[in-house]
Amino acid sequence: MSNSISLNDLKSRDPSYLETIFSLANGHFGIRASDPIIGSDTAGTVVNGFYEISKIIYGEKAFGYADNNQTIVKLPDLRTINIYDNQGNKFDISNLKTESLNMNTGLLTSTYELSNNISGKTIELTVNSTLQQSDNQMVGLRYEIKPLSYSGNIKLTKHLNIVASVDTVGDPRRAKAVKTLEYQKDNPNSHQEILTTTTKKSKMSLQMAIYAKDSLEKEYDLSNGKVVFDVIGVVSEPNGKVSTNDLPSFEKIVNDSTNFWSDFWERSEVKITGDDSLNQALHFNLFQLTSSSGRDGKTNISAKGLSGTGYDGHYFWDTEMYMSPFFTYTNPEIAKNLIKYRYSILEDSKKTARAAGVDEGVLFPWRTIGGPEASSYFPAGTAQYHINADISYAVARYYRATNDEDLIKKYGMEIIIETARFWNSLGSYSKINGKDQFCFFDVTGPDEYTAIVNNNYYTNRMAKFNLGFAVELIDKFPEKATELGVTTEERNNFLKESKSIYLPYDSEKKINEQDDSAFNKPIWPFETTPKENYPLLLHYHPLRIYRYQVNKQADTLLADFLFDDITKEQLIREYDYYEKITTHDSSLSRSIFSALAARIGLKNKAYSYFMDTVKTDLIDLQKNTQDGLHIANLGGSWLTVVSGFGGLQVKNGSLTIANHLPDEWKKLSIRLQFQGRLLEINYLPSKIDVSILSGEPLKIIVDGVCRKDS
Amino acid sequence: MSNSISLNDLKSRDPSYLETIFSLANGHFGIRASDPIIGSDTAGTVVNGFYEISKIIYGEKAFGYADNNQTIVKLPDLRTINIYDNQGNKFDISNLKTESLNMNTGLLTSTYELSNNISGKTIELTVNSTLQQSDNQMVGLRYEIKPLSYSGNIKLTKHLNIVASVDTVGDPRRAKAVKTLEYQKDNPNSHQEILTTTTKKSKMSLQMAIYAKDSLEKEYDLSNGKVVFDVIGVVSEPNGKVSTNDLPSFEKIVNDSTNFWSDFWERSEVKITGDDSLNQALHFNLFQLTSSSGRDGKTNISAKGLSGTGYDGHYFWDTEMYMSPFFTYTNPEIAKNLIKYRYSILEDSKKTARAAGVDEGVLFPWRTIGGPEASSYFPAGTAQYHINADISYAVARYYRATNDEDLIKKYGMEIIIETARFWNSLGSYSKINGKDQFCFFDVTGPDEYTAIVNNNYYTNRMAKFNLGFAVELIDKFPEKATELGVTTEERNNFLKESKSIYLPYDSEKKINEQDDSAFNKPIWPFETTPKENYPLLLHYHPLRIYRYQVNKQADTLLADFLFDDITKEQLIREYDYYEKITTHDSSLSRSIFSALAARIGLKNKAYSYFMDTVKTDLIDLQKNTQDGLHIANLGGSWLTVVSGFGGLQVKNGSLTIANHLPDEWKKLSIRLQFQGRLLEINYLPSKIDVSILSGEPLKIIVDGVCRKDS
Repeated sequence: MSNSISLNDLKSRDPSYLETIFSLANGHFGIRASDPIIGSDTAGTVVNGFYEISKIIYGEKAFGYADNNQTIVKLPDLRTINIYDNQGNKFDISNLKTESLNMNTGLLTSTYELSNNISGKTIELTVNSTLQQSDNQMVGLRYEIKPLSYSGNIKLTKHLNIVASVDTVGDPRRAKAVKTLEYQKDNPNSHQEILTTTTKKSKMSLQMAIYAKDSLEKEYDLSNGKVVFDVIGVVSEPNGKVSTNDLPSFEKIVNDSTNFWSDFWERSEVKITGDDSLNQALHFNLFQLTSSSGRDGKTNISAKGLSGTGYDGHYFWDTEMYMSPFFTYTNPEIAKNLIKYRYSILEDSKKTARAAGVDEGVLFPWRTIGGPEASSYFPAGTAQYHINADISYAVARYYRATNDEDLIKKYGMEIIIETARFWNSLGSYSKINGKDQFCFFDVTGPDEYTAIVNNNYYTNRMAKFNLGFAVELIDKFPEKATELGVTTEERNNFLKESKSIYLPYDSEKKINEQDDSAFNKPIWPFETTPKENYPLLLHYHPLRIYRYQVNKQADTLLADFLFDDITKEQLIREYDYYEKITTHDSSLSRSIFSALAARIGLKNKAYSYFMDTVKTDLIDLQKNTQDGLHIANLGGSWLTVVSGFGGLQVKNGSLTIANHLPDEWKKLSIRLQFQGRLLEINYLPSKIDVSILSGEPLKIIVDGVCRKDS
Repeated sequence: MSNSISLNDLKSRDPSYLETIFSLANGHFGIRASDPIIGSDTAGTVVNGFYEISKIIYGEKAFGYADNNQTIVKLPDLRTINIYDNQGNKFDISNLKTESLNMNTGLLTSTYELSNNISGKTIELTVNSTLQQSDNQMVGLRYEIKPLSYSGNIKLTKHLNIVASVDTVGDPRRAKAVKTLEYQKDNPNSHQEILTTTTKKSKMSLQMAIYAKDSLEKEYDLSNGKVVFDVIGVVSEPNGKVSTNDLPSFEKIVNDSTNFWSDFWERSEVKITGDDSLNQALHFNLFQLTSSSGRDGKTNISAKGLSGTGYDGHYFWDTEMYMSPFFTYTNPEIAKNLIKYRYSILEDSKKTARAAGVDEGVLFPWRTIGGPEASSYFPAGTAQYHINADISYAVARYYRATNDEDLIKKYGMEIIIETARFWNSLGSYSKINGKDQFCFFDVTGPDEYTAIVNNNYYTNRMAKFNLGFAVELIDKFPEKATELGVTTEERNNFLKESKSIYLPYDSEKKINEQDDSAFNKPIWPFETTPKENYPLLLHYHPLRIYRYQVNKQADTLLADFLFDDITKEQLIREYDYYEKITTHDSSLSRSIFSALAARIGLKNKAYSYFMDTVKTDLIDLQKNTQDGLHIANLGGSWLTVVSGFGGLQVKNGSLTIANHLPDEWKKLSIRLQFQGRLLEINYLPSKIDVSILSGEPLKIIVDGVCRKDS
């Protein structure tokens, strides 16, 4: 299999779009695939967890509001190079000829034809770039210059150029400009250059270095044909320093990257027989998702990964609900580190809970990099308390998939207890239908097309799980529970609350209701809404959207997807109801619709929703891939394949799979890890084959029947 | 009766507090009573309707949000003067000795002992100031200087000094700093100085001038005793020019002011026999309320009047619900001009409705000076749609009190129809209790301690009135209705909606419910809330406040107060219920509690709530009178006396009064105007005497019995 993406696979030639698609990252830093000669406003390097803060300005501020913005910093573009002819004229015209990303090696190869208006003569520049993946501070850059109509001497100069921070036009999906950076450049000798960037407000620093074996400024003679110029770039940890001693060669970095990706595909391959372009898209998604993910326990996965600065580089609930499933079942070490990151911000999350007026437990920030809440519009931010349960759900998912008790004891259980404490403190009993039921008032669910509602079904269902899981862990790890200060009374409160949580249900429609008042509202006038008015949030005041039944993403269905706790008949009714009022204005919507459609046997819908999203970035579906990849959507496409078409769930501790193979596919082959085994599951039109590639035999429920596969 | 306020009547000597209390205004401009020698950061002049704009910065902006702040501009302090001794040393130490505001003449007299550290010698400065009230552009200033230990020559210099715009510390009750002003000073000759202030963004201009008969810099000899220096100040209309030709003398301005206030008290006197200090407070309230009110149909009454720049000088619903009742029944010309102001911003209000996603009618801005919505937190701003009905209610109140059909035809009816159209477009029918009921989702009532709720009782009740009043006017003025494009279908829709509006009622508690979910929520933990944590909004996140039953002001009771449409038994139950959950964190709360307590016969409560608020500013109850007067509260105190203790309502077009005289008072005497008559109503412990001082006899319902008084 070729496993690559080339220019020919893409319809757009927009430079910013290509910068995103061909961006490279290794969890620590990311480089957009800029033109090395011309550069661009959107080019540059971002480092996971390296951000500046600025005071949030509110028109009207109230008590407890978040204080500071956190904005990921755009750092110099490592691809930039200057090339001069023998008259000293710079080649300043560049045309991209070919570009190809090899997903087996992580090598990006970009070829440009260069010229200038003075001589009119041309040369060819090829940039090969790849990132070190094991000790992930290095980038290898190989510049190859070939004579075309020009074959005289050339001079190359390579420096770290500070990038301008461009003011955005108020689009929340782009990053704020950062204008409080300080730079210091050191050139200890001719073959290296070090740039230290310091943020004035957050008081962080970062070093970048470039290194060339001979010199960063060098002359070559093109008359004998192609010349090769290797540069190694180094990017420190936040607040760390670079070392330019014993740097690896370009080839060594290529090897490192190749090994990483080879091992990766071994464990994570998903193969669809019958649609090569789909296969390619899915591979691209997994490649970029993995590139984007922090792996050090100190960082996470931003909404745009490391492919851009959109959403200010913030981490959201997307990580736990759309991205970490993939890692949990293929690269659990990464899933573990994502949990450790959440553990690392528990103290800040305590403060966020207090600021929001909840006296116990933690509230994970709706959006953050460093830990403090950075959401400046609380009705669609901090009020999304469900993030607490989303993170807890991810801990449970990881625990069930790995049996990793160590992670639970060291990190996970404290997260679960502290989030359960939050729900306990937030909620209150209210008499509903003659029963005392545990309620949550004034919350916002994932579907941000309503805000500040009572008893959002998704939130309540997730909190029910969160409290119940806390009891499970308390009972299983009593010593740890005592260490965390859990009393019997507290445990019993959690249990009672979990059992008494109110779940809105409409007895006429016989479906779960999104919140207490959802079905009272009129249905959005879809018939009279022009196509160009979607996404609604960009064309209507929130107040208008709020007062109608309309979903950006159907969060009630998301709960159904996660818990599979209603009858198939009810699920069909719910799917049908919510589908009619969902706009899919969130890129997170379609993957869940697809997976549920597969589950209830709507094969065509499952397939078509999946096809609508699997290529979101490759076809620039939302017209904003230029700002960065839709990372949650990349993860969502895997989730759809594996949990939708592949029917993967974990039920009572057992791996459960089911065959919902679309008619369009001849075969679906999935590799994954579960409780220490590496599995390959092959879905064929009429059967499922499971092979355990490494590890002990495992009980698996296949299409409802228990099998022991080996 | 002395009818004055002196330093001795006040407990605080805080200069900013005194600046507010002794501020003078005439509807057009206001002058804070600063120390003329020392000045202060809070001193200065504000002009009704003269404001600068600045872009509202949102952390996260969404479609339809308000674009610009509007901030009233602080202009030079007209009281400032410099005095030098014969060595050229400035008298720069000032101690206020006495200060007194005569509310019969509008004359403020402030006496200071001045000295400096160089000579140590003293003189006495008295500033007499008063504002022209008829053609309200003038201020008369008379400086009297007496020798004390110093009796040599002095030099006076008088100029217009630009005031610094001080950054506020984020308190919403203070004004933003304005830093985009341009100044131009002209001194055409030695006895006049003209300052033109231009706002760079809103592109407005304003001229101020000072004029002294001889010269603005003059030497005097103190050895013969007191010297007198008169200065006339002139303040133009926004975008107007001043003229310094034929300026009146100081005495003439005093006469003008005296005539105005004499006529005012003639028509507006409220006298309580038995409590002089209460009488004084009530007079102060009416004096300052009237001083603050725009009278030209182009301006309105800001939350702080013209006594300060708090709340950025914005106009709110306070005008219609708390201030205009007084004018309607005593100075209807002012009430009419307040309605004309609202009419003047109909076009902007159409835009506000569209921005908020309502396709028909107008939405009056929640806060504004010039017309556009300036609220930057829509859940407690623009979502307070009730302002539409509040304004309509004020139109109806004025119409019933005056029979002024001309105002209705020219201005009022368009307001009523356009607001009714808004409700028609905003609402939707929903099946509740088996009936199709007209509902409003995602609205915020006046009690901002919940936001974005469904079917806020107050909002729904007011909308019901608004739609019903529209039908009344359409039926009465069919030609005007046609001119406004009203069809029979539209009229019938209004009627049906008005009759079908859903009014939340709890059948167990047998009281109206604040909104659909109010009574499901737990009651705020009052027992465990420390006293210093009030007002809650300054100590708890909105999310915490929202999820409890707790009222800043009980808006359901406000509806009861306005419509008197429930049984006395239900009113008692409601009063009892809501009183327990109301913090009175809004200064608008207690006056309504007092009036309702009077209505249901809780004499002690009525008296004590009244006493808690009538002196709000005089005793600095809320510790922020320094930022300006609580104008709505000034109006509220009148409302309590007249509608509470005096039982004034208009029912079926008839003036209705009832005797709820507190035991503490021997007599309450109220002057008011109704349908062209000037009445004096005297409440005595056992009877009510009504005299018609001018005009035809009038049918009045007194304690439930119809009387014809003359």
